[in-house]
Amino acid sequence: MIKIGIIGATGYAGGELVRILTGHKDAEIVWYGSRSYIDKKYAGVYQNMFQIVDAKCLDDNMAELAKQADVIFTATPQGFCASVMSEEILSQTKIVDLSADYRIKDVATYEKWYGIEHKSPQFIKEAVYGLCEVNREDIKEARLVANPGCYTTCSILTAYPLAKEGIIDMKTLIVDAKSGTSGAGRGAKVPNLYCEVNENIKAYGVASHRHTPEIEEQLGYASGEEVVINFTPHLVPMNRGILATEYASLKKDVTYEEVKAIYDKYYQKERFIRVLDEGVCPETKWVEGSNYVDINFKIDPRTNRIIMMGAIDNLVKGAAGQAVQNMNLMFGLPESEGLELVPMFP
Amino acid sequence: MIKIGIIGATGYAGGELVRILTGHKDAEIVWYGSRSYIDKKYAGVYQNMFQIVDAKCLDDNMAELAKQADVIFTATPQGFCASVMSEEILSQTKIVDLSADYRIKDVATYEKWYGIEHKSPQFIKEAVYGLCEVNREDIKEARLVANPGCYTTCSILTAYPLAKEGIIDMKTLIVDAKSGTSGAGRGAKVPNLYCEVNENIKAYGVASHRHTPEIEEQLGYASGEEVVINFTPHLVPMNRGILATEYASLKKDVTYEEVKAIYDKYYQKERFIRVLDEGVCPETKWVEGSNYVDINFKIDPRTNRIIMMGAIDNLVKGAAGQAVQNMNLMFGLPESEGLELVPMFP
Amino acid sequence: MIKIGIIGATGYAGGELVRILTGHKDAEIVWYGSRSYIDKKYAGVYQNMFQIVDAKCLDDNMAELAKQADVIFTATPQGFCASVMSEEILSQTKIVDLSADYRIKDVATYEKWYGIEHKSPQFIKEAVYGLCEVNREDIKEARLVANPGCYTTCSILTAYPLAKEGIIDMKTLIVDAKSGTSGAGRGAKVPNLYCEVNENIKAYGVASHRHTPEIEEQLGYASGEEVVINFTPHLVPMNRGILATEYASLKKDVTYEEVKAIYDKYYQKERFIRVLDEGVCPETKWVEGSNYVDINFKIDPRTNRIIMMGAIDNLVKGAAGQAVQNMNLMFGLPESEGLELVPMFP
Amino acid sequence: MIKIGIIGATGYAGGELVRILTGHKDAEIVWYGSRSYIDKKYAGVYQNMFQIVDAKCLDDNMAELAKQADVIFTATPQGFCASVMSEEILSQTKIVDLSADYRIKDVATYEKWYGIEHKSPQFIKEAVYGLCEVNREDIKEARLVANPGCYTTCSILTAYPLAKEGIIDMKTLIVDAKSGTSGAGRGAKVPNLYCEVNENIKAYGVASHRHTPEIEEQLGYASGEEVVINFTPHLVPMNRGILATEYASLKKDVTYEEVKAIYDKYYQKERFIRVLDEGVCPETKWVEGSNYVDINFKIDPRTNRIIMMGAIDNLVKGAAGQAVQNMNLMFGLPESEGLELVPMFP
Repeated sequence: MIKIGIIGATGYAGGELVRILTGHKDAEIVWYGSRSYIDKKYAGVYQNMFQIVDAKCLDDNMAELAKQADVIFTATPQGFCASVMSEEILSQTKIVDLSADYRIKDVATYEKWYGIEHKSPQFIKEAVYGLCEVNREDIKEARLVANPGCYTTCSILTAYPLAKEGIIDMKTLIVDAKSGTSGAGRGAKVPNLYCEVNENIKAYGVASHRHTPEIEEQLGYASGEEVVINFTPHLVPMNRGILATEYASLKKDVTYEEVKAIYDKYYQKERFIRVLDEGVCPETKWVEGSNYVDINFKIDPRTNRIIMMGAIDNLVKGAAGQAVQNMNLMFGLPESEGLELVPMFP
Repeated sequence: MIKIGIIGATGYAGGELVRILTGHKDAEIVWYGSRSYIDKKYAGVYQNMFQIVDAKCLDDNMAELAKQADVIFTATPQGFCASVMSEEILSQTKIVDLSADYRIKDVATYEKWYGIEHKSPQFIKEAVYGLCEVNREDIKEARLVANPGCYTTCSILTAYPLAKEGIIDMKTLIVDAKSGTSGAGRGAKVPNLYCEVNENIKAYGVASHRHTPEIEEQLGYASGEEVVINFTPHLVPMNRGILATEYASLKKDVTYEEVKAIYDKYYQKERFIRVLDEGVCPETKWVEGSNYVDINFKIDPRTNRIIMMGAIDNLVKGAAGQAVQNMNLMFGLPESEGLELVPMFP
Repeated sequence: MIKIGIIGATGYAGGELVRILTGHKDAEIVWYGSRSYIDKKYAGVYQNMFQIVDAKCLDDNMAELAKQADVIFTATPQGFCASVMSEEILSQTKIVDLSADYRIKDVATYEKWYGIEHKSPQFIKEAVYGLCEVNREDIKEARLVANPGCYTTCSILTAYPLAKEGIIDMKTLIVDAKSGTSGAGRGAKVPNLYCEVNENIKAYGVASHRHTPEIEEQLGYASGEEVVINFTPHLVPMNRGILATEYASLKKDVTYEEVKAIYDKYYQKERFIRVLDEGVCPETKWVEGSNYVDINFKIDPRTNRIIMMGAIDNLVKGAAGQAVQNMNLMFGLPESEGLELVPMFP
Repeated sequence: MIKIGIIGATGYAGGELVRILTGHKDAEIVWYGSRSYIDKKYAGVYQNMFQIVDAKCLDDNMAELAKQADVIFTATPQGFCASVMSEEILSQTKIVDLSADYRIKDVATYEKWYGIEHKSPQFIKEAVYGLCEVNREDIKEARLVANPGCYTTCSILTAYPLAKEGIIDMKTLIVDAKSGTSGAGRGAKVPNLYCEVNENIKAYGVASHRHTPEIEEQLGYASGEEVVINFTPHLVPMNRGILATEYASLKKDVTYEEVKAIYDKYYQKERFIRVLDEGVCPETKWVEGSNYVDINFKIDPRTNRIIMMGAIDNLVKGAAGQAVQNMNLMFGLPESEGLELVPMFP
């Protein structure tokens, strides 16, 4: 039984970790960390867990938790994990960090986009970017995994095979992404109120969203060239789900079958990536509650572009599900353990 | 491995049966019956099942299916199950009927409220009303189970202990219920279009909804007296969930603790009924995707009434989940097998 | 041109006042009071008013405002209006108070249900309860109008004719009400976040909601007897709209036509009350954005009860629209001026 | 008083025409045409119009209607208007066609994208494309106006000034658009059911949507070159609203101020186009119920692209509102008559 600590257990990603790990047969949560709800019953914060979780919330004492837990999930604001990280902690426990602290290899890029100083840059090199389908082998050996962002997971995986195979002109890549509101977290802010989000759609963070350099870095590794993209997130009136619509010019004439073969080469054996049948557009509802990434594409001969589309549940594959997938890899468990979640429709 | 046939597999309740049974370790679906989609891939109708279900849809040949399946779920319009039922079928397989055909013992009442002739009234007596928490022992022995309606499951279980113990004046019982739109089914009708339901709430079927006599009959058994109620359903802009708010006059002075003790007497050991802590109102979101019934109550000394509240997921405990719970009982399996579904929030 | 001041102009009710008054040909807003946004452009808070309203937000200095405005709307939290009211202010300007401060005649009842001390009880007697269809003549003469609550407007008007004519047993009256989320205001609170409200319904304030005594008082005046009711509000995932479903036993046998005649007696000439055709249930969407109250009823001979239903837009007839209707009466304008708002569908 | 006939009065665009024209002081609807609801009361189809519209629905006899009406709005499926058009009709009345029949000048392009034969191509040349802000003078003289599509109105106006001034490389233009569900019409189809749309987002018509050639043609006129674009519509869980996010490479270095000056050159005097303050992203909710187009842009120096954003209410500026705006121009009325609609929030 793997002993698990969660810091930030009462955020939406933290809550999803609890939901998933409750059904994981080799995991046991020993620490529900929540700075805001210390000593309160966890099920009082998330009433769905009534009679399922009996524990009370604890603080975020990582030093103490490192002694008790085999792995710690930090579902915390940017900067927290970096501020508490130490060799001592890493020598006692494994870490899956759901924040951005260790996702970006270049500390200057991190500090520029996030506007904060990185408190423990010495661990960045060691940290493995936890995109399981791309970095599986490295994750198995890792002490410290940087769990990818929600937008980034979807955006990268949707374009990855074509970037890797050099089919698309990376200079032309544009990612137009749409997210449900849980991605904004459980903080009490006016823009996230029901009445402000419902019956509304807007772009935000245009040409400045923090997930941009993360997508660029990873697709840069894939394509072997420097990648600079436009990434535009939008807020959609729904709880869960991210849809990425991506545009790129094709570097050569390709047929549907050729592109499909490339996707299949990378994803056919992947348990959690489904390349849909020709002509079927991904819909976020078809993956809701599950760890799946649904992907498809359309070639437009009129413009010589390819339109790629990917859909995930932002709280599962975009956060907690991928974190558990990483944990499974780190502990030598079957990768899908606890993640056999059938999408819920409607 | 229990071999399962589903007639009506492409309705919302049928789809939920597939979702749940896919995760049931002793069940194997051998027949996806759908009159509208014969020969089409099931996963083409419900794309969430892509790469999970590979089968094509079949017809509704019950005679043939009875030979292949250990149990048949009929998630079909009223009248279908009664029209095809026969001793031969029942001698070959078990039936869990999700329609209303065998729920009401008095055939005249059925025919009056449903406006159709009952084609096989000879099986009504044998049929067991599949409200597991009330009729558990009978269900274990049944060949034919009438799976309760969604509104009725919620409405009955919310008031059952107080009706049974004679605490409330049954003549004063009023059930004001609110349902998500999946309860209206997947038929293409203007009133169920997104734009008609969204940003809207309305009552419907006022003083005439077909679930009324079913609630009355079951609460009549519980209280030992004839029960005639007002039941008012409302359509709420959400996919899933039923909330029943029930009002009744108290027959004597009771304290919170006394009423709580009554609920606990009936429900404390029930795996799927959660009587919430004092002051916590049930919310449909807290049970979404799960087989739970969340219940609570408030005594109003000003009016000498008790307000009872119950919440379920209409497609799970109100349909497919309860059907699987019935199946588990009928086959001697652990009652919660395949139903260890943690509610999904948000 | 009537000069108008609004205190609380950046709440949802305040915003709706601005929307309505912008289209009122005899009104001119001279003061956009908002404690939270002083010196900020009003259109920066409500971007829908961009290029329509050019003013900046001001403070809540009632003494100064009383000198400038012909009428002040206070769309403020409970207690504010009472705390600043004075004979000096009332001698200079008229007041339409959208809070509860002057709605309840018995100060002890107010203080008990609202849990705060009433700072100016000397004005309660003078204040006119601004339910236009009931108190029209008194409103015309008033200096201080207590604008009714949203739930109460809907709940009272739905039952008023039957209470007044003594057709229903007031001791049996139960009001089960459902409201959109804008009724909860624009405060940044976790329970009002999109993800908490969406795909969810719950009761709240069961047997304890503050609108209860207001409904009881007014229906008491109508029926000529003390009225004690159960009132249960529910939060519905929609922005606007209140639906009240009300239950009462009939004191004598009545036909549909007799009850319809009673409703028509009171409402046929009312510009903003629509008694729907037989069998048509009110829907909140059919009144959205307008000042209408849609009402209908169903007699249930099985239980000898009548089910009454009423629907309003909580921000219009339940708040800002009724406030403007009151203003029109107070200033001798046509009652519907600025309120010729056609409901928006879908 | 302008006498108005509407064919297709019970679709969503037709309903919106009725809502708007009800408040238009120089207009009187004399014909509510609806093939599906002949002889039924209009207010029975759209209950929001109860006691506002008393008329019954009539058929679609254009010949007869042409004698009675000064202008006919055809809010009908593609092909209808073209199939009934004649010189006789045009000599008797004016036509504002809300379908696509006369929007595209090249009949072959129309027939290819719409897959139907054009029945009266002889009127295409005469027809004026009713994008008021672009073709105002021609509209004033027109007998036959082709009212632009919803997506196209938003997409064109968002990019128009930059296309016109040659600032952007038209070969790089990509339009990623998001629409509320009313754009899909009131037809009873499974994909438009509440449960299918709610909690979901998807692209559709990728590289094949019929509004593509309309955008290309108009932006071609503006830029003076052939334009071929990628246009990707998405279905968003909301009733109303279109947001277009558009990407294009800049042909030269420009500052925010320079681009703003270009937008202002074309739009500053436009009553219904609002170029927002720097940094404010358009949101569909801010224009809901109104005829506004909200526009803004962001220059991304990293990619040398400009991201343009535009928001409209698809039923108002995207259909009925623009149609009325066209009518006002055609009859010499103030352009904003009947269109002084303040956006409704929340």
